Amino acid sequence: MTTSLKAVTHAQNIRYDKAAEALYIIDQSLLPNEEKELRLRTAGEMVEAIQKLRVRGAPAIGICAAYCLYVLARTIEEPDPAAFQARLREYSAQLCASRPTAVNLSWALGEMEKTAAAHLSDPRPVLLEALYQKAVDIHQDDIAKCRAISEHGLSLLKEGDGVLTHCNAGPLATSRYGTAQGPFFLAAERGMNIRVFADETRPLLQGARLTSYELHRAGVDVTLICDNMASMVMKNGWVQACFVGCDRIAANGDTANKIGTSGVAVLAKHYGIPVYVLGPTSTIDMDCPDGAHIPIELRDPEEIKTLWYEKPMVLPGVKCYNPSFDVTDHSLISGIVTEKGICRAPYTESLAALFH
Amino acid sequence: MTTSLKAVTHAQNIRYDKAAEALYIIDQSLLPNEEKELRLRTAGEMVEAIQKLRVRGAPAIGICAAYCLYVLARTIEEPDPAAFQARLREYSAQLCASRPTAVNLSWALGEMEKTAAAHLSDPRPVLLEALYQKAVDIHQDDIAKCRAISEHGLSLLKEGDGVLTHCNAGPLATSRYGTAQGPFFLAAERGMNIRVFADETRPLLQGARLTSYELHRAGVDVTLICDNMASMVMKNGWVQACFVGCDRIAANGDTANKIGTSGVAVLAKHYGIPVYVLGPTSTIDMDCPDGAHIPIELRDPEEIKTLWYEKPMVLPGVKCYNPSFDVTDHSLISGIVTEKGICRAPYTESLAALFH
Repeated sequence: MTTSLKAVTHAQNIRYDKAAEALYIIDQSLLPNEEKELRLRTAGEMVEAIQKLRVRGAPAIGICAAYCLYVLARTIEEPDPAAFQARLREYSAQLCASRPTAVNLSWALGEMEKTAAAHLSDPRPVLLEALYQKAVDIHQDDIAKCRAISEHGLSLLKEGDGVLTHCNAGPLATSRYGTAQGPFFLAAERGMNIRVFADETRPLLQGARLTSYELHRAGVDVTLICDNMASMVMKNGWVQACFVGCDRIAANGDTANKIGTSGVAVLAKHYGIPVYVLGPTSTIDMDCPDGAHIPIELRDPEEIKTLWYEKPMVLPGVKCYNPSFDVTDHSLISGIVTEKGICRAPYTESLAALFH
Repeated sequence: MTTSLKAVTHAQNIRYDKAAEALYIIDQSLLPNEEKELRLRTAGEMVEAIQKLRVRGAPAIGICAAYCLYVLARTIEEPDPAAFQARLREYSAQLCASRPTAVNLSWALGEMEKTAAAHLSDPRPVLLEALYQKAVDIHQDDIAKCRAISEHGLSLLKEGDGVLTHCNAGPLATSRYGTAQGPFFLAAERGMNIRVFADETRPLLQGARLTSYELHRAGVDVTLICDNMASMVMKNGWVQACFVGCDRIAANGDTANKIGTSGVAVLAKHYGIPVYVLGPTSTIDMDCPDGAHIPIELRDPEEIKTLWYEKPMVLPGVKCYNPSFDVTDHSLISGIVTEKGICRAPYTESLAALFH
């Protein structure tokens, strides 16, 4: 079921209508040509929406999954608390398995499960209300964190700077402002001039379809480039920093983010340009020692072979390698910007300090 | 006017039918979905075919331009030799201006003009026959050079090696075998196993549409990747060398080639992988001291904004930067492979030695 976006006062990527008890997302796979809300009702619809990137961006997936688990909890009819919990865990596991790389998904679902466990002996309406409040808290908390990340990120820039960014980590990928692109919205609000170069980010073109869309609409000076043009843009001297998001940060600072991020970081090092990773502390996985331990999702080769699900452009038999993420070595990262401030190398120490 | 490829015994990217006095090219902009020959009759059709990349690849453009100038010479009715020459020069200038970066285009046209000058006082049929023979010579010469380049290139590889390549420099871009991809066809003929990773090469996807098409049909083990996956493929240890083509090599070894080549070279250096530039000596411009003096063609932003001329994927007002080529610094190049052998640094010396 879809609703025209024009009917919504404040367009939000994820929106829970409490009066109607209905969860809506903007279907990001249709942007920028179509702005359409999609209602999520069943676990099958939710998993499909996450896998097909209708909702995407590590923090947004976490927020969405929290609301999803609340929606699914409302459908559980078992009166027995243990049976309820078992069913909730099944739903949580289903959602959690939809995408493997981003840690925010499992983190948000874990928070929801903990909340359910704490209220298991309460009357069902009280338990459900606690779950709803937890989802709202996760959402509101992300808004506050994105704002703080954006402030810290902006402190790294000065008037007139050029910044290269990869993929999408703006409001669509998070809650409001965003992480890697948050500082650009904040700069625009303050009348500060930052020139952004947005990698289009193949194969699914989140940079072209989402980042240039969000930034252009917000009045930010954005120039779209193909991923393979980043080297020339850097060589031209147009870029003073690279801002990228993250899907999982290991304890040593190795960072999994959209495929191509490690390439941006290697190029930036070559041209002497700093690379900053921006994301909430919930993206840091202290149980993961380094990048070699981060599972990398391999996606359908058709995403490469048929451009944006249109005309085929490769012979049917040709092999394709389609990793969704790559790992950027901590040695290539100039700083990790969280809501708590900017961590510098050695990351094994600075990241650990965030949690003490 | 188009002719089905199936009617042609040996499909060739550029084919001159002397009996019919007709020049045909395979329209590369339609590959791999459609294999269609296109007849070129007028200067306008020829310029359009070059600009729209219906014929592309630095050596192929040179070969095609030579035949084009012959076709146009046949249409000149002025009996006066000086008037003929003036008209021929106008046509040559028109063709030469169609694309600025590759040196082969102006080189081939120069050769044709010199031939005309040498036969200016001959009867017109003799002059025209000399022009035809010159075009055939340029074509045959490229076949021989590509074969030699392929042999030299293959000498750099061993059984089981993985090689990353960018854009298309195979038979479609040249005459036969190709330059950067020539060694792979030669390896396949000899039963040698080379695993090729082909960058798709945005925005016009020559790697996906042409390289993976040519290699797959020839039985080469080819895996297509998006440009931004090269870093991960190199990090995975799957690649022992990078083979790239060239559109113009400056006297110091700086090399202009398809946009993204410099990025591949920076990544390869980071991961300790050698980068070889493969091309005929006609691509070396000894009058050009370094990469800063190579003109870089900027193309229509629509090539980025609408994927392969289909569905729009960017808001109309968004700025795009669309350079067709970039310059790879000579310090990033492990060797330049020509038909005369492999040049190593310092290139100011090794390239100059080719011409003495």
